[in-house]
Amino acid sequence: MVKAIMHGCNGKMGRVITDLIKADENIEIVAGVDAYTAVPNDYPVFEKIADCDVEADVVIDFSNASAVDGVLAYCTEKQVPVVLCTTGLSEAQLEEVKESSKKVAILKSANMSVGINLLLKLLQNAAKVLGPAGYDIELVERHHNQKLDAPSGTAIALADSVNEALDNAYTYVYDRSQRRQKRDEKEIGISAVRGGTIVGEHEVIFAGVDEVIEFRHTAYSRSVFGKGAVEAAKFLAGLPAGMYDMGDVIQF
Amino acid sequence: MVKAIMHGCNGKMGRVITDLIKADENIEIVAGVDAYTAVPNDYPVFEKIADCDVEADVVIDFSNASAVDGVLAYCTEKQVPVVLCTTGLSEAQLEEVKESSKKVAILKSANMSVGINLLLKLLQNAAKVLGPAGYDIELVERHHNQKLDAPSGTAIALADSVNEALDNAYTYVYDRSQRRQKRDEKEIGISAVRGGTIVGEHEVIFAGVDEVIEFRHTAYSRSVFGKGAVEAAKFLAGLPAGMYDMGDVIQF
Amino acid sequence: MVKAIMHGCNGKMGRVITDLIKADENIEIVAGVDAYTAVPNDYPVFEKIADCDVEADVVIDFSNASAVDGVLAYCTEKQVPVVLCTTGLSEAQLEEVKESSKKVAILKSANMSVGINLLLKLLQNAAKVLGPAGYDIELVERHHNQKLDAPSGTAIALADSVNEALDNAYTYVYDRSQRRQKRDEKEIGISAVRGGTIVGEHEVIFAGVDEVIEFRHTAYSRSVFGKGAVEAAKFLAGLPAGMYDMGDVIQF
Amino acid sequence: MVKAIMHGCNGKMGRVITDLIKADENIEIVAGVDAYTAVPNDYPVFEKIADCDVEADVVIDFSNASAVDGVLAYCTEKQVPVVLCTTGLSEAQLEEVKESSKKVAILKSANMSVGINLLLKLLQNAAKVLGPAGYDIELVERHHNQKLDAPSGTAIALADSVNEALDNAYTYVYDRSQRRQKRDEKEIGISAVRGGTIVGEHEVIFAGVDEVIEFRHTAYSRSVFGKGAVEAAKFLAGLPAGMYDMGDVIQF
Repeated sequence: MVKAIMHGCNGKMGRVITDLIKADENIEIVAGVDAYTAVPNDYPVFEKIADCDVEADVVIDFSNASAVDGVLAYCTEKQVPVVLCTTGLSEAQLEEVKESSKKVAILKSANMSVGINLLLKLLQNAAKVLGPAGYDIELVERHHNQKLDAPSGTAIALADSVNEALDNAYTYVYDRSQRRQKRDEKEIGISAVRGGTIVGEHEVIFAGVDEVIEFRHTAYSRSVFGKGAVEAAKFLAGLPAGMYDMGDVIQF
Repeated sequence: MVKAIMHGCNGKMGRVITDLIKADENIEIVAGVDAYTAVPNDYPVFEKIADCDVEADVVIDFSNASAVDGVLAYCTEKQVPVVLCTTGLSEAQLEEVKESSKKVAILKSANMSVGINLLLKLLQNAAKVLGPAGYDIELVERHHNQKLDAPSGTAIALADSVNEALDNAYTYVYDRSQRRQKRDEKEIGISAVRGGTIVGEHEVIFAGVDEVIEFRHTAYSRSVFGKGAVEAAKFLAGLPAGMYDMGDVIQF
Repeated sequence: MVKAIMHGCNGKMGRVITDLIKADENIEIVAGVDAYTAVPNDYPVFEKIADCDVEADVVIDFSNASAVDGVLAYCTEKQVPVVLCTTGLSEAQLEEVKESSKKVAILKSANMSVGINLLLKLLQNAAKVLGPAGYDIELVERHHNQKLDAPSGTAIALADSVNEALDNAYTYVYDRSQRRQKRDEKEIGISAVRGGTIVGEHEVIFAGVDEVIEFRHTAYSRSVFGKGAVEAAKFLAGLPAGMYDMGDVIQF
Repeated sequence: MVKAIMHGCNGKMGRVITDLIKADENIEIVAGVDAYTAVPNDYPVFEKIADCDVEADVVIDFSNASAVDGVLAYCTEKQVPVVLCTTGLSEAQLEEVKESSKKVAILKSANMSVGINLLLKLLQNAAKVLGPAGYDIELVERHHNQKLDAPSGTAIALADSVNEALDNAYTYVYDRSQRRQKRDEKEIGISAVRGGTIVGEHEVIFAGVDEVIEFRHTAYSRSVFGKGAVEAAKFLAGLPAGMYDMGDVIQF
């Protein structure tokens, strides 16, 4: 049973992860850390990680940038691996993360979703088979109507993963309405749908002669990042110093 | 039992329709017309429609533009309604169709598919409910990699139908990658996917708060136009002179 | 601007509806009622509806069965229409609802979702066109892994709606693995997928010759019922005494 | 450039493969074999393979069981690898295939589709990651209304592939309507949809906490088997004696 400290335990993601771990028989939370300690938890909660005297195998951090320095100091000193999910770190902090990873295991990833990270790997294999065999590649993503950018960063990451497996020989096309010509073999069409409160859906399409193969990922809430953090924590416990990412967690 | 003359019976669509009618107990082919008469048919085949002396309730025409004059002359004289599916008519011929429709029932439609024509109607009702209630509207279509235009004519027709039901207050957006802003409420996003040999797929999406309603049409071959022609023929038999379209066939 | 009293304003659905109405310029909450009054609201909150002295055009009720008697008494006396979303009413209460509807407008529905209620109507039109034309009808629903019953009540309601439009000539088939035979024309296949935390997805399929038409509804959270309640409230304000349901709200 | 003999060149699949190879710059047909030689081909056609004196790197066989003995004799003697797609072989013939594979390369597969064989591999990797992490597994397949069996053989093969990767710890469930209970973690639900002329669609679903990952394969015609045969032929040319299958062709 992996013993975890949940850093940021009373934030939204901290509560999501607490629930997920309650239903997981291979990991338990032995302590939490949160500036806001007024709510009841099933485990002891400390205001600062420096105050935490409970032994643990791993720290899961979903807090805010200002608290990350304390996490790195604690994990390095106590030699406890850390899954670092907090975003918005400064350049100096990112440098400190790198330095700390020479002394303790640190896992950090652009996207913490298990499903997306699995697809990033599987799509490379699919692309290596279907690309040379002449299947056309297209990508459609859907997000809510408040999203500013298009296509999504995850869509680009998926396209990049496919393209990398094909020697980066493909170019991306975002709009076909302004031209009148057949599709080029070496293009990846990327379409962005926007509407309502859709959390995030990504679909990668390989279309050949009378055959279509599709890979689709749907996120129903930000909980999918919590699930990834839990899997990462179980993976990271006991590992030697080094920089890890979600790609390392997805092993088959 | 509706008695039909299949004009262009040995062409690709003529054979598709012959098979469809064989499985339909409400209509039968009593005669065929085709310049190419060497193949065996279950019904008598004439080289020209003028030679055909079999009584019928309706003519289904899937031939070529040069044969349409003969069809119009025959149908007007014999007072037999005609489902006119041949495309590429000249301006003069289109005028002649209009004139003939004063004397006999003629059905002609941009898209002969039952499913698409049904959606054109249902989407108007959906739009009237969901548009004012704040649901965002998006459209994704998929076609084969040899198609020159994007989006498809059918996609535009579907969007136009939705827009018409909403007082034409919406504008169409084909590309969101070149801007960085939230979706406008009064836009219909239209995305075109191209790949392989996909015959045609159209999906209309209404996205609201934590809810998505989708209407999808998939064509697996051009047979879908044959099916529409058969339904049109059963509808048109016995009707008075006039110009009809597939929208008239879709009645509920 | 419709003035609404939110009965049960500090419950989960009460808060969802408060947020939805904030973004809607045709309706506003003028007062709330909740036994739990310790949280701050943008509107005055009363412990009991009997205490509420704010004038309103409609009451939205998402509370619990024990509070419903008070709502009915208030709405009847003050002549304020009520959208009754609370479930689990006793037989006596249901009888009281019926009696009250002779004196004031009451709206009550098995499923409050706008999308599902829209589909219930559109599917009848689709069935009337596609059923007689020989299209096969199938239904696939997906729900979370904690759901006890299969298929879902909503799936049955959708199938019933389709069947009703076809003179109830169809039978339902839930399993084809135990027989070895072709599909009967007059059956509706209903499949239930169970997994993860899927809130609810329903898909109705009409499959013909080389053509498939699909209607799909996806709920991402229970908020979809809140959206329905808001639309119902705007519809119900000002209407005469009577029993209404969501089908009345969906007008095109 | 791989030189291929198309055995059964004037049958339906022979013509499909001829067209596919015309568009492929890495393989060409140098000769055909067919009892029916009256139609024009771009390559010389022989009535029997024994008569064929054109040198080739591989034979693609899509003929009928009675012609397979001749193919095996030819390929063994001339030392030409063979992609054996003909079905319905007798026990004696299957034994002969096995014997012949000791002398020459033979490729034979239950399903020749590139897409399905790719999924059979990728799904094992997905299952190894998602199964232990608690994602529920479901499968939905769709086929035409004339199909006698349900679920399809391919659906079972996909489920078996997933199950094998999970130590065969899962059982298959075909109907949930007859029980009232939560889904078991170690079950794979398999649903069969039947309608119209749907050629074949298979969808494997992994559903976790607020996340769904789907793999979908759609066949639009039997041409997908032809595509697989062409890829198999390019793969097999030049390989040593042995028994191969489509899984060997899918390499990443």
